[in-house]
Amino acid sequence: MSEKAKVLVVYGSDSDLPVMKDALDFLTEMEISFNTTIVSAHRTPKKLFSFATDAVKNGYKVIIAGAGGSAHLPGMIASITPLPVIGVPIKTSTLSGVDSLHSIVQMPPGIPVATMAINGAKNAGILAMSILGTADKKYLTKVQSYKKSLEETVENKCAELKEIGYADYIKKNLKG
Amino acid sequence: MSEKAKVLVVYGSDSDLPVMKDALDFLTEMEISFNTTIVSAHRTPKKLFSFATDAVKNGYKVIIAGAGGSAHLPGMIASITPLPVIGVPIKTSTLSGVDSLHSIVQMPPGIPVATMAINGAKNAGILAMSILGTADKKYLTKVQSYKKSLEETVENKCAELKEIGYADYIKKNLKG
Amino acid sequence: MSEKAKVLVVYGSDSDLPVMKDALDFLTEMEISFNTTIVSAHRTPKKLFSFATDAVKNGYKVIIAGAGGSAHLPGMIASITPLPVIGVPIKTSTLSGVDSLHSIVQMPPGIPVATMAINGAKNAGILAMSILGTADKKYLTKVQSYKKSLEETVENKCAELKEIGYADYIKKNLKG
Amino acid sequence: MSEKAKVLVVYGSDSDLPVMKDALDFLTEMEISFNTTIVSAHRTPKKLFSFATDAVKNGYKVIIAGAGGSAHLPGMIASITPLPVIGVPIKTSTLSGVDSLHSIVQMPPGIPVATMAINGAKNAGILAMSILGTADKKYLTKVQSYKKSLEETVENKCAELKEIGYADYIKKNLKG
Amino acid sequence: MSEKAKVLVVYGSDSDLPVMKDALDFLTEMEISFNTTIVSAHRTPKKLFSFATDAVKNGYKVIIAGAGGSAHLPGMIASITPLPVIGVPIKTSTLSGVDSLHSIVQMPPGIPVATMAINGAKNAGILAMSILGTADKKYLTKVQSYKKSLEETVENKCAELKEIGYADYIKKNLKG
Amino acid sequence: MSEKAKVLVVYGSDSDLPVMKDALDFLTEMEISFNTTIVSAHRTPKKLFSFATDAVKNGYKVIIAGAGGSAHLPGMIASITPLPVIGVPIKTSTLSGVDSLHSIVQMPPGIPVATMAINGAKNAGILAMSILGTADKKYLTKVQSYKKSLEETVENKCAELKEIGYADYIKKNLKG
Amino acid sequence: MSEKAKVLVVYGSDSDLPVMKDALDFLTEMEISFNTTIVSAHRTPKKLFSFATDAVKNGYKVIIAGAGGSAHLPGMIASITPLPVIGVPIKTSTLSGVDSLHSIVQMPPGIPVATMAINGAKNAGILAMSILGTADKKYLTKVQSYKKSLEETVENKCAELKEIGYADYIKKNLKG
Amino acid sequence: MSEKAKVLVVYGSDSDLPVMKDALDFLTEMEISFNTTIVSAHRTPKKLFSFATDAVKNGYKVIIAGAGGSAHLPGMIASITPLPVIGVPIKTSTLSGVDSLHSIVQMPPGIPVATMAINGAKNAGILAMSILGTADKKYLTKVQSYKKSLEETVENKCAELKEIGYADYIKKNLKG
Repeated sequence: MSEKAKVLVVYGSDSDLPVMKDALDFLTEMEISFNTTIVSAHRTPKKLFSFATDAVKNGYKVIIAGAGGSAHLPGMIASITPLPVIGVPIKTSTLSGVDSLHSIVQMPPGIPVATMAINGAKNAGILAMSILGTADKKYLTKVQSYKKSLEETVENKCAELKEIGYADYIKKNLKG
Repeated sequence: MSEKAKVLVVYGSDSDLPVMKDALDFLTEMEISFNTTIVSAHRTPKKLFSFATDAVKNGYKVIIAGAGGSAHLPGMIASITPLPVIGVPIKTSTLSGVDSLHSIVQMPPGIPVATMAINGAKNAGILAMSILGTADKKYLTKVQSYKKSLEETVENKCAELKEIGYADYIKKNLKG
Repeated sequence: MSEKAKVLVVYGSDSDLPVMKDALDFLTEMEISFNTTIVSAHRTPKKLFSFATDAVKNGYKVIIAGAGGSAHLPGMIASITPLPVIGVPIKTSTLSGVDSLHSIVQMPPGIPVATMAINGAKNAGILAMSILGTADKKYLTKVQSYKKSLEETVENKCAELKEIGYADYIKKNLKG
Repeated sequence: MSEKAKVLVVYGSDSDLPVMKDALDFLTEMEISFNTTIVSAHRTPKKLFSFATDAVKNGYKVIIAGAGGSAHLPGMIASITPLPVIGVPIKTSTLSGVDSLHSIVQMPPGIPVATMAINGAKNAGILAMSILGTADKKYLTKVQSYKKSLEETVENKCAELKEIGYADYIKKNLKG
Repeated sequence: MSEKAKVLVVYGSDSDLPVMKDALDFLTEMEISFNTTIVSAHRTPKKLFSFATDAVKNGYKVIIAGAGGSAHLPGMIASITPLPVIGVPIKTSTLSGVDSLHSIVQMPPGIPVATMAINGAKNAGILAMSILGTADKKYLTKVQSYKKSLEETVENKCAELKEIGYADYIKKNLKG
Repeated sequence: MSEKAKVLVVYGSDSDLPVMKDALDFLTEMEISFNTTIVSAHRTPKKLFSFATDAVKNGYKVIIAGAGGSAHLPGMIASITPLPVIGVPIKTSTLSGVDSLHSIVQMPPGIPVATMAINGAKNAGILAMSILGTADKKYLTKVQSYKKSLEETVENKCAELKEIGYADYIKKNLKG
Repeated sequence: MSEKAKVLVVYGSDSDLPVMKDALDFLTEMEISFNTTIVSAHRTPKKLFSFATDAVKNGYKVIIAGAGGSAHLPGMIASITPLPVIGVPIKTSTLSGVDSLHSIVQMPPGIPVATMAINGAKNAGILAMSILGTADKKYLTKVQSYKKSLEETVENKCAELKEIGYADYIKKNLKG
Repeated sequence: MSEKAKVLVVYGSDSDLPVMKDALDFLTEMEISFNTTIVSAHRTPKKLFSFATDAVKNGYKVIIAGAGGSAHLPGMIASITPLPVIGVPIKTSTLSGVDSLHSIVQMPPGIPVATMAINGAKNAGILAMSILGTADKKYLTKVQSYKKSLEETVENKCAELKEIGYADYIKKNLKG
């Protein structure tokens, strides 16, 4: 791994990758350096400990951790490192991610995890950028530009919606 | 701690003790040796690791772990030790222990936790005794005697209920 | 049935078999002898009673019971036998297995059921092996080897992920 | 027990009696003969079987069964007897009776339990009376009279409410 | 409608018919006469009132009512007729029928609805037959025969399962 | 009742009055004429029908209906009258009003109920005033004044909070 | 936009349009003038403010707002305008719209949102028409005609159901 | 307010202060400068906008926002400012804060809110300190010291627990 990466992105299983990809793509697009690997709280507990213990030393500023079901990864990392930890509850086939959400968000006093929406990996990337902005205003500017682009996207859609009407808009853009 | 204890009973916080007491009292009553201490997955992660790693070497046969909220203790112990781990979800003030239950029971394939009812600490003690019975029939006999005593208690109550009627039974035993 | 089988695996309906197969496959792979049949608490209550009553006599050490909806099978078996009973809540089409989970895990004081995740049949097999380890260390060694293999699988995936990058990893392994 | 009782009212624990009293009081008031006792699916499984098996022979027409948590009593009785079984889910301290409701109402095809509201014991008595009305119109008449009395109680309250106004009505009847 | 039908089966929408069919098929198979039609509490409130008011006069003994979402049909019928009313909560696309279940089962003291599982229409038919058995033992005998047939079906499956093994059983009967 | 009242406020039971009082007090304070009485969908179904049928004729513009549990009152009124119906789900002792909310809000296409928060009776009064504003701008002005007063209350609290600090503010206003 | 439109229909994302279409189609069919556009509380907060602030001035009488997940749009509009605001919770892929429902319906005292069923956009249109009826009886008449048409549709289905029987009805109309 | 404060702590109502006090006390204890006031998304929407718009300019680095029910405050602030926003869902009397949690955590892609446990205000303070650590290592050191103190507190309790036994520990520290 590159020693200079600012963000560490981990997840409990490679089956979480299609969701976590949204965070990785966002960080790539925003040119924020990151490292990423699988760290399973349950299958690789020693790796969890060493990664969390060495995170500051390795130069990371923020850690993003995605996990599903009895999702212990974000909380266990947060129990070891002083860095801000962002947790992404992954949707599960039986409980739709309510189990993941409860496991990640209901942390006891002392050990916070910054919890995102179920499957909200993209927002984990955005929040990481926001947090990096605490030290370097360039990142806050990037957040602002990104939010501006969201607004413009909506306005472009509104213009089209106004022009062709809702029925045609649905036909063209949402159903085929 | 006594080296010979068969059961290790841990919990994430001393505030869990009034619930976990049911397990400790049961083991005491059944004359099953145990050790007990607080091990917080989040506040004492290193202790969690050393306790789980040394559990077999220290002679334990079963581990009982109680935790509430984002309850990572039972699952993290189970990720490290090959011993059977019994999890007790502690009732919480906000989500009534549904969060604890989800955090403990929804373990991924590979790492089981034998989950009890919310606040079901007594049953953790009984299951531990049942599991010890796999190696020593004396414990199965104890389980059977205990279940027999439950049955007798019900029958004694039924006799009284029949004798004095339900209205008086409620007044005498359930309301004052 | 072979008299020497150590584990009895039952389920309320043959429609539970595709889920319970994970436990049966695991026990087969680990060379742990078992018997298996359908026992419906509701459709074959007498069979439930005779199986639970004779379980110790028939030499079983652990019972695994899967059931869905108003899932009474694991708890009713546990009410009769002193053996450890492992319950597997089966996912349902209407309530996703929350009903099964509640019916199995919320047992009253006196009658524990070691509850697994919804559809967590494989973990029932692993826990059974762990419990057998109480009497015979060979099984604990098997659990440890199995957990080691889980760790290695993760590490192999990590190596590939590092080599080809997350985008290609997803394309190759997770989407096609 | 009197051989002529038409309704059998059972419950899993004497702690359910303060709730089940509503059914017993109603049956008493309506002069419908009943027998009542504690039958615990988990603590007295043999009694459960004998009571359910003999229910028709003993002349019962309807069975009311109350239970909480992993509430198996109503469903197990229904699996054995052809009589209509009415289930009363008892409120629990941890899950408010959602566990009881799921355990009772989500019965598989083949074995119905007529499920009441959580703690809805009075309605179990009323439904039993309604069911008895299938064979004897006198009971239907009683149901109608009872419903008429409910209507009159509301109308009397309305009259008072109109006369003294809502503010005084609350002060007088609902707060002190 | 035939004046002699014993059971009235209604539902809030024709979209409930694929579920309610299970009740209608069962009654047909058991040769229990019934009438069936759509009665929407919300779209045809007057029809609801007249059907409920005339139910006794029209000779019905039991009413089965299925409804989904804000499911008012069973409870409103029960508020008008003294007959036993069986409610079937229909699964919904947004809340999976939890809304239907709450709307049907949580009736206030005075007005019971015998609630079935979500989509449990077949059990509504069986319970209706059980209730008819209060007046005519022939129906109880039918319930017993039906339950016996359920048991035999399970035993036949067990025989095949034992003969060909679980893996082949799944391949043959459950996957293709 | 006064013929000129603009709002009809009903509820299923007088036990709902301590909650519904918030709506009645608000309407009184805003000098909006109303009539109020108990109308139980289940205990007084005929009254429900006549009130709903005559509501337009009686000059009402809006109907507010509060109910708990299987809360059918608002939806049944809405099925009969063309007037806007505002539903207030009352908190219940077992399901905290989730049952009431589901029963009221999940109405099928065709019959809307304007649903408020659980126990949100005051907002029912405010929404009624807003709706009256459609015909008479004076009511919109009242809504605006009311919202302005809410804002001022907050600002006054903020001033005090700033002056005395949060610790003293809590002691003075929130704990004693 | 046309200055004379009576109803403003907004939604947080164009992906809500296939649901909100039901409201727009209904208003079109009923010849009620409306304007519609995307207003995202989170992506276009300034637009939200200006639209809500100018709504009265622009002549709108009712606002319909649909949103999903952390659905802030209806409540934020209601915090600014005195007009009646109807909220439509959009079904979400992870929590089925329970999140949307909670975000919209649980408004604090002072700021009501008239909440519809999850995905209940058509009912938002009907309620808007009902509210317009407060000022102009013509709209109440339209509501009555619409409800009458619902009743007739049911009766036509009943006639067909009676004629061809339930089995054929299902085959013809519901399964193909 | 002091222009130099690094953290802005807001909440929707002064009734949230007893919960939010945990964050304010923590920041005070850690000597992190902050400003605090009531900002209601619903009662003071303009203040919400101006505070969020000016947050960067005013020198804040992190914003903590607590809110209950339809909790729109944290998400609306996050929609306007590029700063990291930490949301604290406040427990509610009807839905225990599940409504608050859903309203805060389920933010759409683009606008993250770092969500804490229900009533988890202390953790909001800790996370804010962690985030400040991105720019100034002194804060990370403080987090580490704080976590160390948590560990020591547990160990002191363990020492006492070992010395006096669990029964006396409960009597002395947990029951009186």
